[in-house]
Amino acid sequence: MKIGIDTSGGDFAPQEVITGVQLFLKNTTTPVQVVLIGNESEVSPFLSGFDANQIQVVHAPQTIGMHEHPTRALREKTKSSISIGFQLLAAGETDAFISAGNTGAMLVSALYSLKPVEGILRPSISALLPKENGSTGLLLDVGLNSDCKPEQLNQFAIMGSVYAKSILEIEAPRVALLNIGEEEGKGNLLAQATYDLLKTNKQIIFVGNAEGRDILRDKADIIICDGFTGNIILKFAESLFEIAGEKEIKHEYFDRFNFENYGGTPVLGLSKPVIIGHGISKNLAFKNMLALAQKMIETDVMQLMKNEVEA
Amino acid sequence: MKIGIDTSGGDFAPQEVITGVQLFLKNTTTPVQVVLIGNESEVSPFLSGFDANQIQVVHAPQTIGMHEHPTRALREKTKSSISIGFQLLAAGETDAFISAGNTGAMLVSALYSLKPVEGILRPSISALLPKENGSTGLLLDVGLNSDCKPEQLNQFAIMGSVYAKSILEIEAPRVALLNIGEEEGKGNLLAQATYDLLKTNKQIIFVGNAEGRDILRDKADIIICDGFTGNIILKFAESLFEIAGEKEIKHEYFDRFNFENYGGTPVLGLSKPVIIGHGISKNLAFKNMLALAQKMIETDVMQLMKNEVEA
Repeated sequence: MKIGIDTSGGDFAPQEVITGVQLFLKNTTTPVQVVLIGNESEVSPFLSGFDANQIQVVHAPQTIGMHEHPTRALREKTKSSISIGFQLLAAGETDAFISAGNTGAMLVSALYSLKPVEGILRPSISALLPKENGSTGLLLDVGLNSDCKPEQLNQFAIMGSVYAKSILEIEAPRVALLNIGEEEGKGNLLAQATYDLLKTNKQIIFVGNAEGRDILRDKADIIICDGFTGNIILKFAESLFEIAGEKEIKHEYFDRFNFENYGGTPVLGLSKPVIIGHGISKNLAFKNMLALAQKMIETDVMQLMKNEVEA
Repeated sequence: MKIGIDTSGGDFAPQEVITGVQLFLKNTTTPVQVVLIGNESEVSPFLSGFDANQIQVVHAPQTIGMHEHPTRALREKTKSSISIGFQLLAAGETDAFISAGNTGAMLVSALYSLKPVEGILRPSISALLPKENGSTGLLLDVGLNSDCKPEQLNQFAIMGSVYAKSILEIEAPRVALLNIGEEEGKGNLLAQATYDLLKTNKQIIFVGNAEGRDILRDKADIIICDGFTGNIILKFAESLFEIAGEKEIKHEYFDRFNFENYGGTPVLGLSKPVIIGHGISKNLAFKNMLALAQKMIETDVMQLMKNEVEA
């Protein structure tokens, strides 16, 4: 198993990336090799502590900045760590790719250099939200698909259920539709049409609508929405964590809003695992992203999604 | 000036409603009469402290419960406090109507018994959100219009600006469009088309897109969105205040999320002021709603909206 990671991606690259790799390798018992993709001269000073079999360095002389225009940067910087990371993944040289670099460039590359799993209309990105009872909820889509069709949302429900079972180890994940009322028939046209598909979908456990007030409650394990709404909710939640920090409002519940703990966001429905990290990721986040990539490869979660959408 | 208020509406009716009326009347210097609309026998025990000129009781023997189906209840309960409240308002017997009763019934009645201001495509409801710097932001629409057209969102920007100037006393209110990216061209089809209208709208001060992370920051005074997204944000924010309370996370910032302090939600763009209170409203909320109704009547804010949309 080979996991590619962008050592030039994120605000604290390469040091925090490499420390994360060390933490991960120290804790894993599976034979896994991490492919460090980035500027070789910046990476090499940190390599003394590694077992040579566990790592490989692939030189990528260019870096796409956090604020560069994704498509333009990808076109111009074919030797960037993100470009090379996806080249290796598409060629089968690696089995997964992780980066905390430019999110837009990651998403564009993922969609253009990899195929969606057969049968999947659109890949999706999800977020984990800390629920007030201590458990964790999955919200998707959180920004990859700003305009959605009901059939796409229905597939997000299937992909989310497979992910929740395989990766989050929730045996019977409950799915709710994000909506502005509890009863069937509520909501905008998209929500109304999606409700009809979800309630007859035998591959998921549909528990009805979830309102804004239910997102942090234990109404469901997976909440489905279009990527416009999901992205706004996610960034709103992140800002609350930031504001609580600035105002020195301390409570263990707010600590759980620290997205660092969750590692990164996998792109669901792609042929291979791609994990997008937050720009502010530190070593713990990178370690968690590597562990997530390993689990996604071991469970072959993408193949399971294919089986479900084709069932 | 006559302000109608539903004494049967809300979880703590009629006592908290009437205490709120007393507080309001004690603090106002304008000649204003409050019309108490509700069950006379329930109201009369509380009337001893009032100056007889300041109040009038209109008997409404029926009450629409908080969980009744709005249209069915309105059809069957023509002698309910909400039905009679709107009859009085439509007939010109009162100048505004306030209720903390069934929200759906309030909205349906408002839309069917009153006309929108001339030129307004769709009325809208807004919410005040406490910003982290101490100021307050206006978010609209928060649930009256779950599917919106760009032209409607453009009018919400105008209505919100008039309201912010007249009622919130913000001299030059900045308007932002809720979106999933900072730059022009981002977002779903609705946001993209709305951006084009807002940026050429000379009646507002448009400052561009606001992301989820900007809602509680001081990027804008008014944030415009469709009612689906706005309702989910509002209920999410309310649930955070609730959860903070349950977990005994105490901080003055969270106190500002207590929607009680803001009174209620005015329906913007109707020919007359209608204010919808939260079911859990107590006397302070009712007092604030009465003060808001008075200010909306005095400033003739609905006429100002008509002038702006026709300009």
